[in-house]
Amino acid sequence: MSNAAPLSGVIPPVCTPLTPEREVDTASLTRLVDHLLEGGVHGLFVLGSSSEAAFLPDGHRRTVLDTVVGHVAGQVPVLAGVIDMTAPRVADHARAAAEAGADALVATAPFYARTHPAEIATHFRTVAAVADVPVYAYDLPVAVHSKLTANVLLELAADGVLAGLKDSSGDDAGLREVILGRRDRGLESFAVLTGSELTVDSALWMGADGVVPGLGNVDPHGYVRLYDAAARGDWTAAREEQERLFRLFGLVHVGGPHMGRSSSALGAFKAALFLCGVIAHPTTALPQVPLDGAEIDQVKSFLSEAALI
Amino acid sequence: MSNAAPLSGVIPPVCTPLTPEREVDTASLTRLVDHLLEGGVHGLFVLGSSSEAAFLPDGHRRTVLDTVVGHVAGQVPVLAGVIDMTAPRVADHARAAAEAGADALVATAPFYARTHPAEIATHFRTVAAVADVPVYAYDLPVAVHSKLTANVLLELAADGVLAGLKDSSGDDAGLREVILGRRDRGLESFAVLTGSELTVDSALWMGADGVVPGLGNVDPHGYVRLYDAAARGDWTAAREEQERLFRLFGLVHVGGPHMGRSSSALGAFKAALFLCGVIAHPTTALPQVPLDGAEIDQVKSFLSEAALI
Amino acid sequence: MSNAAPLSGVIPPVCTPLTPEREVDTASLTRLVDHLLEGGVHGLFVLGSSSEAAFLPDGHRRTVLDTVVGHVAGQVPVLAGVIDMTAPRVADHARAAAEAGADALVATAPFYARTHPAEIATHFRTVAAVADVPVYAYDLPVAVHSKLTANVLLELAADGVLAGLKDSSGDDAGLREVILGRRDRGLESFAVLTGSELTVDSALWMGADGVVPGLGNVDPHGYVRLYDAAARGDWTAAREEQERLFRLFGLVHVGGPHMGRSSSALGAFKAALFLCGVIAHPTTALPQVPLDGAEIDQVKSFLSEAALI
Amino acid sequence: MSNAAPLSGVIPPVCTPLTPEREVDTASLTRLVDHLLEGGVHGLFVLGSSSEAAFLPDGHRRTVLDTVVGHVAGQVPVLAGVIDMTAPRVADHARAAAEAGADALVATAPFYARTHPAEIATHFRTVAAVADVPVYAYDLPVAVHSKLTANVLLELAADGVLAGLKDSSGDDAGLREVILGRRDRGLESFAVLTGSELTVDSALWMGADGVVPGLGNVDPHGYVRLYDAAARGDWTAAREEQERLFRLFGLVHVGGPHMGRSSSALGAFKAALFLCGVIAHPTTALPQVPLDGAEIDQVKSFLSEAALI
Repeated sequence: MSNAAPLSGVIPPVCTPLTPEREVDTASLTRLVDHLLEGGVHGLFVLGSSSEAAFLPDGHRRTVLDTVVGHVAGQVPVLAGVIDMTAPRVADHARAAAEAGADALVATAPFYARTHPAEIATHFRTVAAVADVPVYAYDLPVAVHSKLTANVLLELAADGVLAGLKDSSGDDAGLREVILGRRDRGLESFAVLTGSELTVDSALWMGADGVVPGLGNVDPHGYVRLYDAAARGDWTAAREEQERLFRLFGLVHVGGPHMGRSSSALGAFKAALFLCGVIAHPTTALPQVPLDGAEIDQVKSFLSEAALI
Repeated sequence: MSNAAPLSGVIPPVCTPLTPEREVDTASLTRLVDHLLEGGVHGLFVLGSSSEAAFLPDGHRRTVLDTVVGHVAGQVPVLAGVIDMTAPRVADHARAAAEAGADALVATAPFYARTHPAEIATHFRTVAAVADVPVYAYDLPVAVHSKLTANVLLELAADGVLAGLKDSSGDDAGLREVILGRRDRGLESFAVLTGSELTVDSALWMGADGVVPGLGNVDPHGYVRLYDAAARGDWTAAREEQERLFRLFGLVHVGGPHMGRSSSALGAFKAALFLCGVIAHPTTALPQVPLDGAEIDQVKSFLSEAALI
Repeated sequence: MSNAAPLSGVIPPVCTPLTPEREVDTASLTRLVDHLLEGGVHGLFVLGSSSEAAFLPDGHRRTVLDTVVGHVAGQVPVLAGVIDMTAPRVADHARAAAEAGADALVATAPFYARTHPAEIATHFRTVAAVADVPVYAYDLPVAVHSKLTANVLLELAADGVLAGLKDSSGDDAGLREVILGRRDRGLESFAVLTGSELTVDSALWMGADGVVPGLGNVDPHGYVRLYDAAARGDWTAAREEQERLFRLFGLVHVGGPHMGRSSSALGAFKAALFLCGVIAHPTTALPQVPLDGAEIDQVKSFLSEAALI
Repeated sequence: MSNAAPLSGVIPPVCTPLTPEREVDTASLTRLVDHLLEGGVHGLFVLGSSSEAAFLPDGHRRTVLDTVVGHVAGQVPVLAGVIDMTAPRVADHARAAAEAGADALVATAPFYARTHPAEIATHFRTVAAVADVPVYAYDLPVAVHSKLTANVLLELAADGVLAGLKDSSGDDAGLREVILGRRDRGLESFAVLTGSELTVDSALWMGADGVVPGLGNVDPHGYVRLYDAAARGDWTAAREEQERLFRLFGLVHVGGPHMGRSSSALGAFKAALFLCGVIAHPTTALPQVPLDGAEIDQVKSFLSEAALI
């Protein structure tokens, strides 16, 4: 474990713009990166769940990496998701991400096959052994169907296997257990980032180092204001910003019962970026159901109310 | 929908032997294929869950396909699993499998991202559109965390999207709903295969066409005897064989609480094949926990009792 | 464990007719009992899930018991559900049921508080210790959120705690494990009844002793024909009857998305009994959502097609 | 909806001391009430999950109510849990609690039978219609297997059905949705209490009115200090107190793999109260597994470290 300060700040999971033919729209992706950098974010996380990584073939994943790493050119760290079922498959993504110049990797627990804490630990050890860059654990039980425990995480942190955690479990008591555990064990360089974009003020209050907010694609300035307010100790301002963002987040629910919750949320983020003129098409990857016109109008209302358009 | 008879018989999901260095052990794989063909099986399913497909990088998957398709040389149909999170990624596997000469593909519902019946239907339509060979749906809620419904399956069958179902859901009422539904809608060429290796006699009794038994790696003769007995209407013999195989199946539980249920079951299948001299190493893929010596001894006892060694 | 033959045959879970004011409609209940006895059933199970036991206050439960036990007057055994969260509460119901003259009790695993196999065993031992009549275990994971294992069941059978199992888990491999396990351990007087009304032929084929079918309220003759056919070894007739009942069972799905699946199923059973003239009102207990007119018309169509009206 | 201030402060769910014969130990219960009142708590919640309500027969529930209501004699409000499967059964408990003089009732969503948002709303309306005192909703998905949504809760608040929420879901984004929703709709007298005893500082920070902490049985002073610090705006002191309590909470995990998580937690609370001399016996209700000597020693260590013994 190095003594360096942990990764911190606002690190949005970057949406992956697609053309109507569902190829990666690299021009839009570049504009989106600029939009986020101008918003003041402290890092970028590509190929995460909000990036539709589960829907991107390896070729698309590589295009995203090359485009973003090349365009960012070291201004901020670029973290790359290496989402796949188990370590041997994740290792292939890890090699590709390293080759493309990613600064760090983000991996979930194994999924598809039923797993076990001992297997989860071996999984991360195996991934870290092939990676030349720091590895962050991504806790996302809604997708992965297991929960990373503080015990496993801190054991792996102590052994230098993991550089940090992106916690999207929604379990703030569990988040606190990791935060207090790293303090007790002197693992302060282990980064704790929350992916719960609706409780960022309280996560930072508990001691988290930063946030990975899907909604940060749409309103990076908001999350940066929230983070900055917390950093300077103005918690009331942080809370007010969070409450404003909470209301804006309502746009993820515009999709009706004819689609899944993921289609609705990712469709809404892309529709918002399209309506704001950041990306050229609101297209989502197959087999997601696209938002219809009325649903896109609702996204527009949320943006108007937030004075984003 | 063609008028051809549906795929039928015993079609085991072929284990993937690994060397101690965890490369595909093609010599063992070839011997395993011979073992199964000598056992009288009617087809082979490579790259399924029992094949550790979730643990195999693309390169290993391709080696398995090339080895098995080449060695079988058309004696029986080879079905290839194309297990991945969503249609765009599955499509890449489908192209690779077609190139390698697979006779049919087997795909699950989308997983990782939350899904919806409409999205599941689009998923299979997208996969079928890129496949030159028949596509079978693989219902495995324990891995995929959604259930394929008879309505979606039969709609896709009627539209010529799906050629059949491998049902590993353990839901025999749901299996029956598909069987009666295909009869009512005149979709008799839609194949219904059960993956529930402990209730094969009753699945065949209900009208299923065949079985995809993981345990069939270890005892292909047993499943072929069971199928043949049912085919000639000797249901009492079928039940007796099933009950014998039920007891043999107990070997999947030898793994203790220090591993997951998947490590235990796949480890036991491979240990059995190793003990029977079919494969050279009982190695399972990372991050699975290997069986220890006492657990392998228990596998040996099951094999002795079944007179397989 | 006695050497007596296990309980067997068709033992429907008796619906609980209510007046429009949601009191127990004892006149209708008596008619329903007659309808079932005339249908040839071998026992009656009151206060089970299909009886809306979860919705009945203790006073209603006692009225049901008194009405049915009194009216049946020993013609067939009356089993009484004692559904509650844990042993100390179940024990109170057990005493009330014994006082009312029930011939046997049916209890689930503990629910509400998280449980454990050791606690499940203690739960049944505690209940059996206060009961003067045989106790049957009721496996219903969809309600209780844990699964009874063959190991726990057979240990309790061997110790004389449990007289049998009503398996509504839908897990036919698990059912078979109990059936083979009781044979291996010489526990043949332990009754195995399936609650899966759509796979009765195969459950009997595996060795189950009987069935507890909710749909048996509507069509007791059908289930008795199915059971009798199996008993005389005419499995083809059993399957045909089961397939006919499978189609009739479609009535449980008439309820639209404005209600839960339980409201739909229990509402449909009661609507069918009302349309057949057996009970005076189709009223279900609060807070269930009632079927609307169009949904009741669909029930009518199912009954017409089955020639029950 | 009245204009009164909502219920607020520290309102522990009172453990139910038992004699070794598993009768309610009213002397210990009275001492426990005194211990809590001396700790400065603002109300008492009897017959909740931490009170082992799921394990208490109606007679025990009534004894608890009579004992606590009588002993408190109006010093603080006494809320009574009315935990049961559905409205008609809950109504009986509601009448008994009102008769005993409870100041308010606390009810969960329906459980056991599968439910639906419309049914959940009817459930609470039915309970409120028979209750003469305010009704609080208890959100506890781990026991009840459904989640109360902000929409349903606020609709019921607006209609005067619910007086508040006890949120033990662990979903702090959902908690915030209720808090912001009540503000937006002018429902400020609707009380929001968290049951998540490890994130009380952040819940209060978001705008919650109070906390219902199981651990408050053991250390009421701690939770009162935490609440008071927050009330006077000293959030740093609140966080430090919360972090201290977080570490003390570790005692709930002393129970080994031979018991369920509920046996461990409730056993540890009672062991701690026993070791502190508040209650006479650490006995838990059947069928829970008791802590063994080594586990009780671990509880002692936690208490020592917290300077509570």
